[in-house]
Amino acid sequence: MTAASGKVRVPAAELRTFAAALLEKGGLSAEHAATTADVFVWAAQRGVESHGIARVPAYLDLLAKGVANASPDLALTSTAPAAAVLDADRAPGPVALTAAAAEAVTRARTNGIASVGVRETVHTGAIGYYVAKIAEAGLVGIGFVAGMPNMGYTGVKGPAVATSPLAIAVPASAEQGRAPLLLDMATATIALGKIRQAKASGTPLPEGAAATADGTPTTDPEEAVMPLPLGGAKGSGMSLAFELLTSVLVGAPIFAAFHSDDPAGRKHRQNALLIAVDPAAFGGSDRFLADVEATLGTLKALPAADDAAGVHYPGERSAATADERGANGIPVAPKVWQQLTQAAAEKGVALPATL
Amino acid sequence: MTAASGKVRVPAAELRTFAAALLEKGGLSAEHAATTADVFVWAAQRGVESHGIARVPAYLDLLAKGVANASPDLALTSTAPAAAVLDADRAPGPVALTAAAAEAVTRARTNGIASVGVRETVHTGAIGYYVAKIAEAGLVGIGFVAGMPNMGYTGVKGPAVATSPLAIAVPASAEQGRAPLLLDMATATIALGKIRQAKASGTPLPEGAAATADGTPTTDPEEAVMPLPLGGAKGSGMSLAFELLTSVLVGAPIFAAFHSDDPAGRKHRQNALLIAVDPAAFGGSDRFLADVEATLGTLKALPAADDAAGVHYPGERSAATADERGANGIPVAPKVWQQLTQAAAEKGVALPATL
Repeated sequence: MTAASGKVRVPAAELRTFAAALLEKGGLSAEHAATTADVFVWAAQRGVESHGIARVPAYLDLLAKGVANASPDLALTSTAPAAAVLDADRAPGPVALTAAAAEAVTRARTNGIASVGVRETVHTGAIGYYVAKIAEAGLVGIGFVAGMPNMGYTGVKGPAVATSPLAIAVPASAEQGRAPLLLDMATATIALGKIRQAKASGTPLPEGAAATADGTPTTDPEEAVMPLPLGGAKGSGMSLAFELLTSVLVGAPIFAAFHSDDPAGRKHRQNALLIAVDPAAFGGSDRFLADVEATLGTLKALPAADDAAGVHYPGERSAATADERGANGIPVAPKVWQQLTQAAAEKGVALPATL
Repeated sequence: MTAASGKVRVPAAELRTFAAALLEKGGLSAEHAATTADVFVWAAQRGVESHGIARVPAYLDLLAKGVANASPDLALTSTAPAAAVLDADRAPGPVALTAAAAEAVTRARTNGIASVGVRETVHTGAIGYYVAKIAEAGLVGIGFVAGMPNMGYTGVKGPAVATSPLAIAVPASAEQGRAPLLLDMATATIALGKIRQAKASGTPLPEGAAATADGTPTTDPEEAVMPLPLGGAKGSGMSLAFELLTSVLVGAPIFAAFHSDDPAGRKHRQNALLIAVDPAAFGGSDRFLADVEATLGTLKALPAADDAAGVHYPGERSAATADERGANGIPVAPKVWQQLTQAAAEKGVALPATL
């Protein structure tokens, strides 16, 4: 059944089961399929469409082509108590990063802080999910990702670095009904998808947000091919630093290989670093949760600017969207629904019930 | 002797000895005075005037008023191998954070990663210095700071959060003559000092960089009282997250206290979190240094944009400035030199030789 918007709405649990069934038919183990589906549905439920259910057909394609490894041999290497590297063996990001987040939590509980590097997934998925998992366990999660260069770098002609995100999740008091703080931000001024949307709708881009192929800033979506870094040198520097903190740290450099003469350097891959910080080791979890609550509560009570639609902390509105979609189902765009319907037919998977 | 600019130039070593002598007369122990002077002269030598030698008279004032504690009882608490909290007891930031950086390095060498929170300094000083110390030891340094609210927050009327910086230092190959990557960025679009400079020179501020007392964006430096967050919601979110990662983690909330009815909440103080990551625990230091070198070398070789003054990585130009000032002396602005001369006379300290 379709709503007035042309979007169908599917209950989260049904969408999760359906996505997992498709991914399992795509070659993933039942466990890996369930994990991967959970990440996509989590993003979809929070309104992060770019990392949502549209990724299912995209991943089926990556799996079919062998770009993503359906039977990865995940290998954890560790020579120190609070650090490890997980070689993803081109696994879907959700498989590798979910395991890495759990490993970071376990090690942080013993050591106070711990970090797990993730080496060579095909695509991370929503980095917010993994740091949110760390926060669900009561720890602070910090995540860095590096991907393929697709963004400008101050002073360079053409795409130089990636829109690599930083994510931070902080647990909040569930008793107070407070959603965790969840910052998940690219180092770009705008997302690559915004350029595509502006092109489709013929809307000019914001000043200083995007550039032509040779790096000249433009507001014309027809001319724009890449986003510009957040704040110029700051976003450029963060992205470069994240490449060193992830790819170079785990021994799988992307940036240097991408800009080399070797065509293999342009093969799509991503690396990440997750850090878990245990508040229990810094003065106590209960005190921490109480002070997080005081901080977020204080923010919410500050006087709003005249034209502002309320005062929000990172992750708050996505959590509200997740609540609404949990109750009313997750909307799926017509084009994505059509792709899913086709994949379901091809693979002999029943379509989920819609609302 | 004064240069044409009206600035005297003082050799770094002389300036360090002089600053330390003044700070010791201000009440610090010889060791704490030397440490504090080193941080100020490091910043001055790199061209970071806002955290440079002008801080000496400012700290003498803080010490004289008892705002900074000249005889702090630094107390390290640790309940987990890779984590600790250093209670600074209102010490000058350089004293507490230098000790915290050393502690983080020691613990990271054993555990792979380690973190030390710093509780209640009066003022951090250049956060870049401490992460650079971690990088000098061959580890990756990450630093977060929270200070007193002086910046806008998207949707809020008036100053809400602090311009709290993020710093990342990555060791580079000294053999190749490569300076470490050193990112040290506030979460504000522009520094508070830039507003003062624009006011002094009558120059309009960049669009979207600053706001009036009630939060309305303005380019008029006479109307502007606070910088706006980098990229709106992103800078706002980073600053709020850093308050949770530092102040709230170590049990000394600033934001909630500042916005409360208690006047003590507005007493000036800062908190910080330093993280040291040992590349040896993620695949080896030599391989890491080689790949850092390949990455930075690749960046430097990318085609420059038409109007760009070369391609630079964070910290590169400051390192070049430090080299130049190491050879030719550190310029001291006339007003600062006058303050230092006066302090020297009052405290019976000999002025340094100038160039």
